[in-house]
Amino acid sequence: MPEFRQNLATKEWVIIAPERSKRPRDNNSAVQPEPLDRPKWRQDCPFCPGNEERTTVPVLVYPTDGPQWQVRVVTNLYAALNRDLEPTRTYHGRFLAAEGFGVADVVIEHPRHDLSPAQMSESEVATFLRAYRERYVTIDKDLRINLVSIFRNHGPRAGTSLEHPHSQIIATPIVPPHVRDTVEQAVRHFDKNGTCVYCDVLAEELKRGEGIIEESAHFVAFCPWASRSPFECRIYPRRHTASYMLTTDEELADLAAVLRRVLGRLYIALDNPDYNYLIRSAPSGDHDARYLHWYMVIIPRISTRAGFEIGTGIYINPVPPERAAEDLRAVRLA
Amino acid sequence: MPEFRQNLATKEWVIIAPERSKRPRDNNSAVQPEPLDRPKWRQDCPFCPGNEERTTVPVLVYPTDGPQWQVRVVTNLYAALNRDLEPTRTYHGRFLAAEGFGVADVVIEHPRHDLSPAQMSESEVATFLRAYRERYVTIDKDLRINLVSIFRNHGPRAGTSLEHPHSQIIATPIVPPHVRDTVEQAVRHFDKNGTCVYCDVLAEELKRGEGIIEESAHFVAFCPWASRSPFECRIYPRRHTASYMLTTDEELADLAAVLRRVLGRLYIALDNPDYNYLIRSAPSGDHDARYLHWYMVIIPRISTRAGFEIGTGIYINPVPPERAAEDLRAVRLA
Repeated sequence: MPEFRQNLATKEWVIIAPERSKRPRDNNSAVQPEPLDRPKWRQDCPFCPGNEERTTVPVLVYPTDGPQWQVRVVTNLYAALNRDLEPTRTYHGRFLAAEGFGVADVVIEHPRHDLSPAQMSESEVATFLRAYRERYVTIDKDLRINLVSIFRNHGPRAGTSLEHPHSQIIATPIVPPHVRDTVEQAVRHFDKNGTCVYCDVLAEELKRGEGIIEESAHFVAFCPWASRSPFECRIYPRRHTASYMLTTDEELADLAAVLRRVLGRLYIALDNPDYNYLIRSAPSGDHDARYLHWYMVIIPRISTRAGFEIGTGIYINPVPPERAAEDLRAVRLA
Repeated sequence: MPEFRQNLATKEWVIIAPERSKRPRDNNSAVQPEPLDRPKWRQDCPFCPGNEERTTVPVLVYPTDGPQWQVRVVTNLYAALNRDLEPTRTYHGRFLAAEGFGVADVVIEHPRHDLSPAQMSESEVATFLRAYRERYVTIDKDLRINLVSIFRNHGPRAGTSLEHPHSQIIATPIVPPHVRDTVEQAVRHFDKNGTCVYCDVLAEELKRGEGIIEESAHFVAFCPWASRSPFECRIYPRRHTASYMLTTDEELADLAAVLRRVLGRLYIALDNPDYNYLIRSAPSGDHDARYLHWYMVIIPRISTRAGFEIGTGIYINPVPPERAAEDLRAVRLA
């Protein structure tokens, strides 16, 4: 029986319409995500070691003890935004425009071409998560920046063409309605209940239980009640923190372990699906907000957004999140 | 130089970041969209004539003078919503759900399997546009329905698997935030300026001119100032009308001509792209609203929504709308 479900935080609705769709394959024995079906190194890859001159001078490098680097952050050569512009707004008739000022970083997560975070070690994942935080702190110091978005596009359906493991950071002078509306809902909830709506969502998911994928000391991974797409996963910090900028080293090490395992589960259950993940964090200047809570969203790109979703924002999801969580829990990672 | 642009109606921002991307092929001579590369009739197609028993009893049929039908509207057998449920809302802990009550129609637009609206005649397009309106009026009488969405998914990237030319109507008991936020922006504009923001957008686009694709007695087709994706097209009625339900026969005949030509231009310029189109119309009960204005949006699915778009709602569009409009105007339809 189909059912509407509302996201408690954003008030967005989804339709959960279970189909007799294929279940992911069974996994009885413990498995380990295999490296991707690609060479470890490619001469023509701008992000592979030895080709460093094909990128900009890095804005951040984490070296190894040897001559090699662990993580390199460079300016996106094909950036949609440009830090040499100014965020000046201009009217064209009644229409508003602003110069395309902003920051666009590429985080090269690992020297090896054939890995994704699911195949890296915990400490390797923790290293690039620290690079996110360090860049976030630096970028956020520019008072013209108002929102820092950190995300990863894995595979062509998720919008990437470059194979080499990388994430992106785009910082904009603008806080769009998409984000502002969410903040407003959170403020309203806080003023009514005196609590952070995301803390409340987390408590409710833990009480409900069937959506939980795994828990660690500092994080909970779950398929949310009002999942917009099949196998959507979220990772919430238990500690109320509005901004990813304010995570501690201990938390990042723990997040690395959880993220790597959740991506590993998806890799096994859905056979290396294309996916996006993103970090939703407070707009600049709201890092101490009592009503906001940063978190990660992972969206496997296994369904298509059609006219109904575009028109209404109501997503039709054929896989109930409790069933997705069950399938992900069933994966036995080595 | 990249540029942010704001949608005057919704206040959403996009980034127009021109790339040296391929231009559509040149068209110097007058052309006519060819039928699609498929048989005219397929034995295994549930929507082809002769297979009528494979669909539900139609909720609406427009017959021909002969034994054949022109348009058939049936209930979607794989509907995400079910009209036998009730829109009752229930709390599950703090999470809200509602039974999946709603209406899901399939509008079979034409008996022939190998046509899309770009290849149909004006009067054939007008016929299914009338079917949309008739079903809209009927469905809207049910007071449990609050929003009627009419849309078309063309091709797999647009979310359809069935080839036979068809559109869909999904009516929900819920008005989602995606729609409500737009209404609120329109109300705010009306209260400040005393005008419909969509009438103002249309006036501004006409004044600007470079985004205009074509004009008719009752409609204007254009690539909007803040287009979210390459070659996005809109068709606005010149007359202020909040609801598609209230279009006249004369307007529908005119819309059919414009829609068919715009789809024909896209078909030629982009070589039969997958696309969605949708009709944005007032929620039920707001059909006379002074601040709302129905319109059509056509979205060719030639770009991919990646992590940045999902996270921020800011779309990066590599094709400036004025360039897209220029390319579409250059198509010489026979």
